[in-house]
Amino acid sequence: MKDTGRITTLPPRRGGRRRLSLVAGGAGFIGSHLCRALLDRGDSVLCLDNMQTSRASNLLGLQSDPNFSFLRWDIVDPLPPEVLAKTPRIGRIYNLACAASPPLYQRDPEHTMLTNVVGTNHLLHLAEEAGARFLLTSTSEVYGDPDIHPQPEDYRGNVNCTGPRACYDEGKRAAEALAFDYARAGRAEVRVARIFNTYGPNMDPADGRVVSNLICQALRGDELTIYGDGSQTRSFCYVSDLVAGLMALMEAEFDGMEPVNLGNPVEMTVNELLEQILGLAGGRMRVVNHPLPVDDPRRRKPDISRAQELLGWQPRVPLSEGLAATYAWFEAEVGTCASEVGQVR
Amino acid sequence: MKDTGRITTLPPRRGGRRRLSLVAGGAGFIGSHLCRALLDRGDSVLCLDNMQTSRASNLLGLQSDPNFSFLRWDIVDPLPPEVLAKTPRIGRIYNLACAASPPLYQRDPEHTMLTNVVGTNHLLHLAEEAGARFLLTSTSEVYGDPDIHPQPEDYRGNVNCTGPRACYDEGKRAAEALAFDYARAGRAEVRVARIFNTYGPNMDPADGRVVSNLICQALRGDELTIYGDGSQTRSFCYVSDLVAGLMALMEAEFDGMEPVNLGNPVEMTVNELLEQILGLAGGRMRVVNHPLPVDDPRRRKPDISRAQELLGWQPRVPLSEGLAATYAWFEAEVGTCASEVGQVR
Repeated sequence: MKDTGRITTLPPRRGGRRRLSLVAGGAGFIGSHLCRALLDRGDSVLCLDNMQTSRASNLLGLQSDPNFSFLRWDIVDPLPPEVLAKTPRIGRIYNLACAASPPLYQRDPEHTMLTNVVGTNHLLHLAEEAGARFLLTSTSEVYGDPDIHPQPEDYRGNVNCTGPRACYDEGKRAAEALAFDYARAGRAEVRVARIFNTYGPNMDPADGRVVSNLICQALRGDELTIYGDGSQTRSFCYVSDLVAGLMALMEAEFDGMEPVNLGNPVEMTVNELLEQILGLAGGRMRVVNHPLPVDDPRRRKPDISRAQELLGWQPRVPLSEGLAATYAWFEAEVGTCASEVGQVR
Repeated sequence: MKDTGRITTLPPRRGGRRRLSLVAGGAGFIGSHLCRALLDRGDSVLCLDNMQTSRASNLLGLQSDPNFSFLRWDIVDPLPPEVLAKTPRIGRIYNLACAASPPLYQRDPEHTMLTNVVGTNHLLHLAEEAGARFLLTSTSEVYGDPDIHPQPEDYRGNVNCTGPRACYDEGKRAAEALAFDYARAGRAEVRVARIFNTYGPNMDPADGRVVSNLICQALRGDELTIYGDGSQTRSFCYVSDLVAGLMALMEAEFDGMEPVNLGNPVEMTVNELLEQILGLAGGRMRVVNHPLPVDDPRRRKPDISRAQELLGWQPRVPLSEGLAATYAWFEAEVGTCASEVGQVR
């Protein structure tokens, strides 16, 4: 991890032919996979991350690539000269910057809100200056605790704007509003993805998500924690599918004036997920039920017909395959897992 | 109007006994009445306003008061030393700053969003530093186009976060989220009012509200404009009632963790309002119907039981009386009315 606030690897010029893609939050779980995929496609990548919830180890494989550069930066602050100097080369801006799990984004709710509003605005302004296309990673959390299933994009949601999750949920809704206002005024081309639950390698073992929590607990031989009775549903998308969806959305030629759900519509209860993980762990384990957190959604399932029509995209990795790969990755990382899980950093 | 960015009238010391109340947006329609009422109660008042949509004439009666001071300032910018220097004296902070009518807040949606999020955050931070109590004027617009009537405070709303009204509606929802996060963390005592339609003297003739539009058109002898078929409902609260509610909410002793609707629950159609105004105008006039604007709510009526229980507050001025006073005020201002109405500044 570089933490000097300097860009440490300048992307090669190659006669200016490589497109520069900026990825804010590029050291995070999804961001690090996106950076890898963009490099593999032939882009130069400038990654900004404040390392608030991202893992330094996610950068290890990226930093050996000569077309990758990293700047430790918090997008709440005005973008620094090192980034502004690259404005003419920037063709794509992906905004994945924000703590995304409830215990982490609730630690500093003011910062969570400002990351989504002020940070997004800084990047939108850069997109305007650069003539770059901008993609906001919004979230299924804009639907709150939904009362219709599955959720299509024109569902307006059921969000409590006064509760402890509001800094994130309302922050993302505000960020969407800003992005569409830039688009409506012709200031920037925008794309808005609403991401549903995603899992895979590079997840933070400590961020309190159900997949990582259960796998780490199983690997440690601890009791497995289920919030509520486990009958609440989730839909889990493997990270490679999600990243393919983000890139397809960014490159899709349409007016961008509609958000697009990206996620896996295969819905299951948390108890069904638990069974699969117990199967991978291959042992008898104790399961304990804890109270549901405030405003925790009971059901969550994307309607992805818009993504299918617009992008020809849909998830391809079955849960059994994705979970096995994720379990294997956590197994290799188990030292980290054992020391970090349960702590909210 | 002072527009020098300096405080022009220093409030007297009086042995430090007068409480200093800061009113952001204090030159606006509701803000100017609030400043007057706070002065009448014995407070010193520091009014901040960027004069984006406020009227200089609203300040005329206030600036002759030695306990009133005005600073032209945009709360999106960090608060200036002149304000910070008064931190120890500030006991109450009312945030009424934001363009509030759709054509005006949509002129610069980025600024509207930042006023609500960044501006509110600046004032919340000042409240934290000052140990002052903070009141946010939120809005019935957080309910969007509601599907239940009347709207109680725990209704989560039906807001389109991608549309042209989202900069205001989502900005206010985000501002509420921020305020409650400060309160939850014990950083500041907060009060959140959700204001429904309000009318009275000092309304901006040009801001496109139904009461001011119809009165000005009637006074000019123009045709009267109704959007849609006029069957949509509104509930109109006279400004003196609303200001009494704001002050009661600010001074109420409770934990502040709930927003409070303030408005008049007497619901009527826009056509019924039209009839009353035609009655005041006393002549035959032509009425034209225009298409409804995007995301215009069909019904809007507050459930004020929380305000009644918590504050012992309810509106007292009947519409006939309030409209007559408003009509008379516009009649006296008719020159302004005639020159400005229909222009969106």
